[in-house]
Amino acid sequence: MKVGFIGLGSMGAGMARNLLKAGHEVTVFNRSPAKAAPLVEAGAVAASSVAEACKGEAVITMLADDAAVSSVAEGEGGILASLAPGALHVSASTISVALSEKLTAAHAEAGQLYAAAPVFGRPEVAAAGELFVAAAGPADTLTLAQPLFDAIGRQTFVFSDTPSKANLVKLSGNFLIACVIETLGEALALVGKGGVDQKQYLDFLTSTLFGAPVYRNYGNLIVDTTPRPVGFAAPLGLKDMRLALAAAEELRVPLPVGSLLRDRFLTLLANGGEGQDWSAIGRLAAKDAGGVV
Amino acid sequence: MKVGFIGLGSMGAGMARNLLKAGHEVTVFNRSPAKAAPLVEAGAVAASSVAEACKGEAVITMLADDAAVSSVAEGEGGILASLAPGALHVSASTISVALSEKLTAAHAEAGQLYAAAPVFGRPEVAAAGELFVAAAGPADTLTLAQPLFDAIGRQTFVFSDTPSKANLVKLSGNFLIACVIETLGEALALVGKGGVDQKQYLDFLTSTLFGAPVYRNYGNLIVDTTPRPVGFAAPLGLKDMRLALAAAEELRVPLPVGSLLRDRFLTLLANGGEGQDWSAIGRLAAKDAGGVV
Amino acid sequence: MKVGFIGLGSMGAGMARNLLKAGHEVTVFNRSPAKAAPLVEAGAVAASSVAEACKGEAVITMLADDAAVSSVAEGEGGILASLAPGALHVSASTISVALSEKLTAAHAEAGQLYAAAPVFGRPEVAAAGELFVAAAGPADTLTLAQPLFDAIGRQTFVFSDTPSKANLVKLSGNFLIACVIETLGEALALVGKGGVDQKQYLDFLTSTLFGAPVYRNYGNLIVDTTPRPVGFAAPLGLKDMRLALAAAEELRVPLPVGSLLRDRFLTLLANGGEGQDWSAIGRLAAKDAGGVV
Amino acid sequence: MKVGFIGLGSMGAGMARNLLKAGHEVTVFNRSPAKAAPLVEAGAVAASSVAEACKGEAVITMLADDAAVSSVAEGEGGILASLAPGALHVSASTISVALSEKLTAAHAEAGQLYAAAPVFGRPEVAAAGELFVAAAGPADTLTLAQPLFDAIGRQTFVFSDTPSKANLVKLSGNFLIACVIETLGEALALVGKGGVDQKQYLDFLTSTLFGAPVYRNYGNLIVDTTPRPVGFAAPLGLKDMRLALAAAEELRVPLPVGSLLRDRFLTLLANGGEGQDWSAIGRLAAKDAGGVV
Repeated sequence: MKVGFIGLGSMGAGMARNLLKAGHEVTVFNRSPAKAAPLVEAGAVAASSVAEACKGEAVITMLADDAAVSSVAEGEGGILASLAPGALHVSASTISVALSEKLTAAHAEAGQLYAAAPVFGRPEVAAAGELFVAAAGPADTLTLAQPLFDAIGRQTFVFSDTPSKANLVKLSGNFLIACVIETLGEALALVGKGGVDQKQYLDFLTSTLFGAPVYRNYGNLIVDTTPRPVGFAAPLGLKDMRLALAAAEELRVPLPVGSLLRDRFLTLLANGGEGQDWSAIGRLAAKDAGGVV
Repeated sequence: MKVGFIGLGSMGAGMARNLLKAGHEVTVFNRSPAKAAPLVEAGAVAASSVAEACKGEAVITMLADDAAVSSVAEGEGGILASLAPGALHVSASTISVALSEKLTAAHAEAGQLYAAAPVFGRPEVAAAGELFVAAAGPADTLTLAQPLFDAIGRQTFVFSDTPSKANLVKLSGNFLIACVIETLGEALALVGKGGVDQKQYLDFLTSTLFGAPVYRNYGNLIVDTTPRPVGFAAPLGLKDMRLALAAAEELRVPLPVGSLLRDRFLTLLANGGEGQDWSAIGRLAAKDAGGVV
Repeated sequence: MKVGFIGLGSMGAGMARNLLKAGHEVTVFNRSPAKAAPLVEAGAVAASSVAEACKGEAVITMLADDAAVSSVAEGEGGILASLAPGALHVSASTISVALSEKLTAAHAEAGQLYAAAPVFGRPEVAAAGELFVAAAGPADTLTLAQPLFDAIGRQTFVFSDTPSKANLVKLSGNFLIACVIETLGEALALVGKGGVDQKQYLDFLTSTLFGAPVYRNYGNLIVDTTPRPVGFAAPLGLKDMRLALAAAEELRVPLPVGSLLRDRFLTLLANGGEGQDWSAIGRLAAKDAGGVV
Repeated sequence: MKVGFIGLGSMGAGMARNLLKAGHEVTVFNRSPAKAAPLVEAGAVAASSVAEACKGEAVITMLADDAAVSSVAEGEGGILASLAPGALHVSASTISVALSEKLTAAHAEAGQLYAAAPVFGRPEVAAAGELFVAAAGPADTLTLAQPLFDAIGRQTFVFSDTPSKANLVKLSGNFLIACVIETLGEALALVGKGGVDQKQYLDFLTSTLFGAPVYRNYGNLIVDTTPRPVGFAAPLGLKDMRLALAAAEELRVPLPVGSLLRDRFLTLLANGGEGQDWSAIGRLAAKDAGGVV
């Protein structure tokens, strides 16, 4: 397929590269153009504007937040103004349910197709083309998009013909990951201060009832404080909790652990955590406990 | 080994049966003696008193709470008074760190051996002999107890030579399971009220990042409301949160999600949940949201 | 003064009436015009548009939320477009810090004056002209507005020359009132279920350490379930918690009790509370406790 | 009356002195006898044992916790063993509902009278004889005790003929005070970080809707960090939250803000707060917010 890709951050770069590998013709655009260079080397065409990235059958957006997606989708030279009738916008970003609903209506009015397909996985998983794709949109639209999903992901899960449902699934999924970080952090603070070896404890958990990738990965990130690159920045974690809570508020669903997580992120960000990985909230319980180790 | 087994509830019955299967000579005791009958049929000897169950090399206790363990361990005719010098008491119950410390001291003073070996798994896992055993105690003592652990469990994890550390691990583990129930309940309420199919959502979670038994089992218990036998009663869930919080308080470790879980169990128990499985707290989020489906 | 008044709800009607009583020339506007009739009878002039209410030296807005204030302030025929240079907009509504900052900039650009002066007190207090006014804005502007404050309030407190600080004070004040409702509700559920007479308990509290109007008023609203008119509707309570949390999030201040209150309001609204007074959250603790009396 | 007084801490010393002032014959006992000296100077007789303090018509206990009260009430030479039949034990300490129930039964069995009369007020209020007394017990018993209450307090509130109800009132009252500290702390962190003067804000609150002593006193303790003597130590605050939560758990009443307060005290105590006044939890919100001023 001839496809545009907008947003070459740590996730998007890997996704665009896997589209190329799968044989698609990819035109890439990024606000700061330097990030396009390695992809051009790998065979992509660099677009000098959003509009240029919208000349194919489809365009994928993978951006940090609602504001970034709005700024490329709306207004003069934006996706809505540039995409051909019948062409497809796949929104892979973690955005609000409300913005996804707004885009659904706007693309319909413009005679364009729209699907939401947020993805699960950290940058190394994106690079490996092993993301999980949570997709929603009209059946025809998803069929059209499937080759793109196949290129970036290991498996696609279809939830609804209403795109915003996929955004709700993504937000609730990130909420559940943050729950794992927080609750593991509490348990590790408790056993650690009680004199149990934290790594041995984690090994026990993940080889018994909690044998899921999310416990292994985040458990290690909490216990092993070796400096490493930020996979998912703390401010994005706060953003996701805010969006999950906003969706929940709209639906009148109280999420008490969600509220607590939002407070954790605020505490982290108010105390120097702006540049840390979101897993750093998993060390706040130990800090409250006076520092464990 | 010649071993006594005290406490033939839904967990203990299966454990005792697996000791028999493994070829141990088992003398069983239960407060209400009717529960001993099926085990006697399977080859066990029925003891008419705690003291009678203490005549072998070891005795295992598997009882509901601190009060029950104290009542068989202490006082005239109790385990401490009845066990031979050098014989072993394995406490498999989920009891407080404080009581485990008290038993450690009391058995030492009586010249007896003591190990804590609480287990992970619901009744059907106990019946299958596939429990995970979290053990702590002096190395020699644990070596002695290993054949018993092998009979009841799939794998033994040794945490410390201080028995109470295993109790801390068990309590923190149950805390983490309850965290899964609560947070899954919140996420399911959110997506369910938002119009996403809950079973499909659960399937997505457990085939991606949350592919752990605990998510599968408790997810199903929350979503599928078919009546079924109670595996772990809600009042025991409250007890475990209380013991985890008590251990944490002693160690000065705040556990905010633990506090929230305690409140959930109180809400459940105050509203007719005394006879329900503890997974019922996973449906309170949906109830707060006005009933989802 | 010649002053316009926009928003004749249960609070605004009383405030406008007290401006008339104090001798000001008042032009009133309300989206549904029927509410203007009793004030016209009392001497006010009815405006048929927002613009008509902006022909004097000042205009006061007293509306339900950000959306309502935006809709009368912005756009064609709105306050910003209609008010004379040098004329004054007093925003008495409980609005977000962000909107107040936006209005500050917009009025400055239009050469108009702007002050924020949210008020404390329920409808009967507004009717009595006994509100507390929390004001902020440039000193000159506040001096100009003082006669208006004197007409509607018992006392004016000046916080800053930056208008939005008064909005922050108002939101934090409503947060503190909601805290009283929630915590009184918890204490009343505890002692009530424990067999202590709730009215006697409340009388004890308010004649000793908690002798403040807010404890007396809200204590009675919780304990005495006689049906009565809604003073401050639950959805407005949720809105205020949301705005307080939004301001706090912007400032990176975690408010754990604020988070809990937001969840309480969601629970109330999801369970039939849309038309109830916000004090109804004070009965949720008793409900969680299984119903106390 | 001829009355014994056991427990001469910062509260008890003032209370005993006021009993002397009112003309009662007071025999005082304290575990560390040095504290008796100033009272002996003021006219008291120093007892060298608990039993000696139990020779009059009544004995009052004012001790730190359940353990201290148990240790003087029970066992050889304790109050239960020493008090004459028909003589009265007034328990003024903040103890658990459970211990109060146990003492009620034990004194009845010993043919002695028992009333619970916990008091509200900090040490300076105790010194002034201006405490509020929350009393419960059989009517005859309370009539007998009234002259003692009159000596130490400004006003007596009678709640029930079951003594432990007064303990429940006391615990719920301390819970409500801690709620004020926490919620004021959150509001002060919010407005302070937002640029509003905290003292001016506090002055506004306490001269309007929150005009209660508890807001004035604790507001000042939070905002004004001048070192001053500890009025009520943080570990006692934790104890009171624990006892309130234990009573609530027994009654199946979830107290979410109570749970949060317990966590706050644990955080405080885990981070150097053992020797601080309990009002220090009111500064944790600002600390979480990165330090406000």
